[in-house]
Amino acid sequence: MTSESLTQLKARIREITHFNEALSLMEWDLRTGAPKKGHALRAEAIATLAAKAHALSTSADIGEWLNELSEPAVFNALSQVDQALVREEKKSYDLMHKIPEKLLHEYRVLTSTAQSVWEDAKSANDFPSFQPYLEKIIVMKKQFIEHWGAAEHPYDLLLDQYEPGMTVAHLDAVFGDLRRDLVPFVQAITAKGPVHDGKLFTTAYAFEQQKTLNRQVLEVMGYDFGAGRIDSTVHPFEITLNRYDVRVTTHYDLHDLRPTLFGTIHEGGHALYEQGISPDLIGTSLSMGTSMGIHESQSRFWENMIGRSLPFWERYYTLLQTAFPNVFNKASLEAFYAYINHVEPSLIRIEADEVTYNLHIMVRYELEKGLIGGEYQVADLPQLWREKMEEYLGVTPPDDAHGVLQDVHWSGGDFGYFPSYALGNLYAAQFRHTLLKAIPNLDDEIRAGNLLVIREWLREQIHQYGRVLQPDELVQKVTGEPLTGQYLVAYLREKFSPIYRL
Amino acid sequence: MTSESLTQLKARIREITHFNEALSLMEWDLRTGAPKKGHALRAEAIATLAAKAHALSTSADIGEWLNELSEPAVFNALSQVDQALVREEKKSYDLMHKIPEKLLHEYRVLTSTAQSVWEDAKSANDFPSFQPYLEKIIVMKKQFIEHWGAAEHPYDLLLDQYEPGMTVAHLDAVFGDLRRDLVPFVQAITAKGPVHDGKLFTTAYAFEQQKTLNRQVLEVMGYDFGAGRIDSTVHPFEITLNRYDVRVTTHYDLHDLRPTLFGTIHEGGHALYEQGISPDLIGTSLSMGTSMGIHESQSRFWENMIGRSLPFWERYYTLLQTAFPNVFNKASLEAFYAYINHVEPSLIRIEADEVTYNLHIMVRYELEKGLIGGEYQVADLPQLWREKMEEYLGVTPPDDAHGVLQDVHWSGGDFGYFPSYALGNLYAAQFRHTLLKAIPNLDDEIRAGNLLVIREWLREQIHQYGRVLQPDELVQKVTGEPLTGQYLVAYLREKFSPIYRL
Repeated sequence: MTSESLTQLKARIREITHFNEALSLMEWDLRTGAPKKGHALRAEAIATLAAKAHALSTSADIGEWLNELSEPAVFNALSQVDQALVREEKKSYDLMHKIPEKLLHEYRVLTSTAQSVWEDAKSANDFPSFQPYLEKIIVMKKQFIEHWGAAEHPYDLLLDQYEPGMTVAHLDAVFGDLRRDLVPFVQAITAKGPVHDGKLFTTAYAFEQQKTLNRQVLEVMGYDFGAGRIDSTVHPFEITLNRYDVRVTTHYDLHDLRPTLFGTIHEGGHALYEQGISPDLIGTSLSMGTSMGIHESQSRFWENMIGRSLPFWERYYTLLQTAFPNVFNKASLEAFYAYINHVEPSLIRIEADEVTYNLHIMVRYELEKGLIGGEYQVADLPQLWREKMEEYLGVTPPDDAHGVLQDVHWSGGDFGYFPSYALGNLYAAQFRHTLLKAIPNLDDEIRAGNLLVIREWLREQIHQYGRVLQPDELVQKVTGEPLTGQYLVAYLREKFSPIYRL
Repeated sequence: MTSESLTQLKARIREITHFNEALSLMEWDLRTGAPKKGHALRAEAIATLAAKAHALSTSADIGEWLNELSEPAVFNALSQVDQALVREEKKSYDLMHKIPEKLLHEYRVLTSTAQSVWEDAKSANDFPSFQPYLEKIIVMKKQFIEHWGAAEHPYDLLLDQYEPGMTVAHLDAVFGDLRRDLVPFVQAITAKGPVHDGKLFTTAYAFEQQKTLNRQVLEVMGYDFGAGRIDSTVHPFEITLNRYDVRVTTHYDLHDLRPTLFGTIHEGGHALYEQGISPDLIGTSLSMGTSMGIHESQSRFWENMIGRSLPFWERYYTLLQTAFPNVFNKASLEAFYAYINHVEPSLIRIEADEVTYNLHIMVRYELEKGLIGGEYQVADLPQLWREKMEEYLGVTPPDDAHGVLQDVHWSGGDFGYFPSYALGNLYAAQFRHTLLKAIPNLDDEIRAGNLLVIREWLREQIHQYGRVLQPDELVQKVTGEPLTGQYLVAYLREKFSPIYRL
């Protein structure tokens, strides 16, 4: 009877993964070149398939199977993988079923409207027009939280959806430590001013050569082109259609090589994670990254800790010289290294450098926590934003379009998501610390072009598990301790002190 | 109650079109560059979605709605479009439901196996290994025909699935007339021998320029790139995702410009049909070409009657000269025109020219009709094939791989499909005859680059109706008479007699 439930559950989940493959492909296609006039009908088709997939994953029978399989005597007899499967499925089933259908529907309509209101508000620099929508979203989020149940801090329940197990208590401690060290470090860097001449690198970079470079870099990382492809989009992303079809996209800028190069490495890091998950998990909901933060740790590790490292370019500067001899035979490797590691407090998160990025996240985290906790009101956000930016980064936005209105997340109701970005950097530094203990001569390996040792270590330690291990379990298992802020600070000091001669 | 059934039927069909959009995209993606390692999982996803779509279109409720709506009093009160919808849906519902589920399943397994058996048999030139599968397919096709019901000739029921209303009696008359005139015409051409020097055109054609040419030609035809795109595949095809997303593909040959050029125009002709269907039919099963033959008439009309015409190249030879000056500034337009209209009996259908192509089809038609009618046995096919090829085309295949094994169709059970290819040419010539009455100075319009007048005429006369009008109704309405063979013969004589100085 139980094994019957498990078999049925697995068959159902496999069906759902097939719907998800179709939906992901429809999304990928829309973003990589589906003809514009067909978008409206495509949206209808997506809505139909998404509704079918939703019905498959929330029907009463799946609830019954999950209830049976969650009974302690039954659950404890399951394999580790099956336990993880039941845990993950039960979690998302409950998240959905504890909210009355009417409320869910109202929320979907609200966030769908709010996103276009936000777009207009951003271009018109008009926060008050967006304010009532954001207020309503906060009210509904609080209602959701009440339906979901108790937690030490109400925001914990939102955090948990992106970063299972993460709490305000833990995050306050980690972010607090990090901020205490980072703010003066950024001030010291700012006082030094730029240490490179960007003009050396401002030229026209032919797209064909940029494309070739991207392929070379992905190959060096160990990305499997037999199980993936790279295309061009306005905003780069990684998308998994199935375990053997993990695609990345990149954006080309004619006059700046950095967006495509580091964008590609970033998405490549996400893709290596998905390409490294154990094939045993195919067709289950465990065949994906275990959290937003862990996923981001893989992309940021490759982008910043490898792709923006000196050993990497000691090995691969020749690729740049071959592609664009006019620039890179003139400019020195040292100048390039300083150029790609430029640090400067700025207003816009997505343009922020490796050091200041985390402070942008903390601004958003503090505001989200206060909104959900009830200390802050939506009407006060623009002013709070300016104060926090001044306090953490020493810059003040001239208007709300460059301040509180800059990100899409809140208009879609995605509260609890932002911390993942900084968590990615923290996890990455902590994993890197352990990697350096396992491979002490890592820099030599990189200089020798043996980047596969890195991919193999990550695959062995992290990737293969997919969602079988939760993020806190994974960090403990890999590094022997819970997440802390110290490794990121140490890494940033070690890397940037020489660059800025601190 | 009736309007309730109609509303429900329409909502269901719209859902099915959404599944079909996803399935078409998954197919398109597989053929345009989905990573190889992901194909097996993609096939699973396609199977799941196809099964769901099938269930949606064959469930009992749809049968009840259709029965209600088919009652004469109800049916006669429907609009023309709704009548067509009920007619088409009822037809495919009955085709499916009259066959016992067990038999259908057995057939699917058989044809799926037979296709890989055929592939092996073709490469090994081993007809006997394929023979038992083909025999079983014929047995099952005859069983299907018994379930479907009576007809003057059993093959009529197969013809009707690709070309509604077409019969053996009609086809025998039309093909008979055509063959009587064509066979001696081909013999006369063959006696003259080649009238051009192909060597002039054998060079390396850079792919980038070929791509540009394809886009230019599609634009000239009036293909809407805002509602479509062109990609590269091994075998070119047109695929419709939705009314505003009609894609074509083409194949590039480095040393021969003809495959990509005329392949693109051919698929472009299919695409213009789909892009010209009335938007009022969106979301219904009427928003597609009305038959295989009518669809092929649009592609063949553009490919041969426009794309291989002298006025077209009088206007657009400059495009070739700009793309490949080394070739086309040397070669004369007349030489090129003779080169692209080379006629020569050959063994392989898909490589055949405009004149001999129809005779290849007649070989297949005669054999299919005899197999289904019971006059021919599968074991005799290789010999029958050789005899018919000798009789119609004056050539004899050296082996079965270049003879009876060359086409995939029979291994998939697609009997009744082949005639569509020749019907396409016949319809095209008959439509052309009417078009020339409507626009007597058509050649001048083409020389002036006004090809949109052609697209508009086709849209007005043919495209807009989708499947609302059946092929025989459409031909009668557009040309004022039923399909006959005379217009194709007249067109071929008019075009090729000067080329071959007959």
